[in-house]
Amino acid sequence: MISKIDHIAIAVSNLDEAVRTYMNVLGCGADAIRIEEVPSEQVRVAFIQVGETKIELLEPMSPESPISKFLEKNGEGMHHIAFSTDSVAREQERVTALGMRPLGEIRRGAGGKEILFLHPKDTGRVLMELTGKKKEE
Amino acid sequence: MISKIDHIAIAVSNLDEAVRTYMNVLGCGADAIRIEEVPSEQVRVAFIQVGETKIELLEPMSPESPISKFLEKNGEGMHHIAFSTDSVAREQERVTALGMRPLGEIRRGAGGKEILFLHPKDTGRVLMELTGKKKEE
Repeated sequence: MISKIDHIAIAVSNLDEAVRTYMNVLGCGADAIRIEEVPSEQVRVAFIQVGETKIELLEPMSPESPISKFLEKNGEGMHHIAFSTDSVAREQERVTALGMRPLGEIRRGAGGKEILFLHPKDTGRVLMELTGKKKEE
Repeated sequence: MISKIDHIAIAVSNLDEAVRTYMNVLGCGADAIRIEEVPSEQVRVAFIQVGETKIELLEPMSPESPISKFLEKNGEGMHHIAFSTDSVAREQERVTALGMRPLGEIRRGAGGKEILFLHPKDTGRVLMELTGKKKEE
């Protein structure tokens, strides 16, 4: 079951500048920001909590990052929407039965949570992510 | 003060098809969908509640709709993020003092709520909306 929007991800070329912009728009202080590197995706990420949802600003750490490719093609802007679920595997089964294709396998994203992306051709041209719980070691 | 993300708006060329796609992704029934026409913006809108936030699917009602222009230029995809506030006027004052420019004046959007868009050049290339309460008649 999908319970809420976990985050909205935005591709940015300069994370520090983007963080300042969002602090201004949202009227929040630096204490509301958490920064993390996700080497598997080659991104540096800033999280900003807004109600029950996070804004996730994604800056590429290398030209091989999917975010580098996105920025080259589209410039800065909204990248994907992630939905919270208690079981990514169960949601994968449900949406696959409806004809949606996953992009790769369930893997671990920011915060150690299980994530799975769906093919944007099957989801109205918007990249969507299913986000689960932290995987136990 | 900004309390939550009111909605994420997505431009679509065929609302009925997009609604079916989102019902599939989110695993919700037709009872979770509300459809409204907003003549001032020349859009037909479907609202889908996900936790405290709404997904807002925007289909143009005429070639003059800003959404027609967006679809021509970008194709289907994420259009803007709207933040909830108890006073759009107060937030306008706050963000203007920080150098952000509003796009036009405070006006009435879907559900009769006060809305104000901010210039994407000032908000990291993402179109943002401030959403307030219903204006009393």
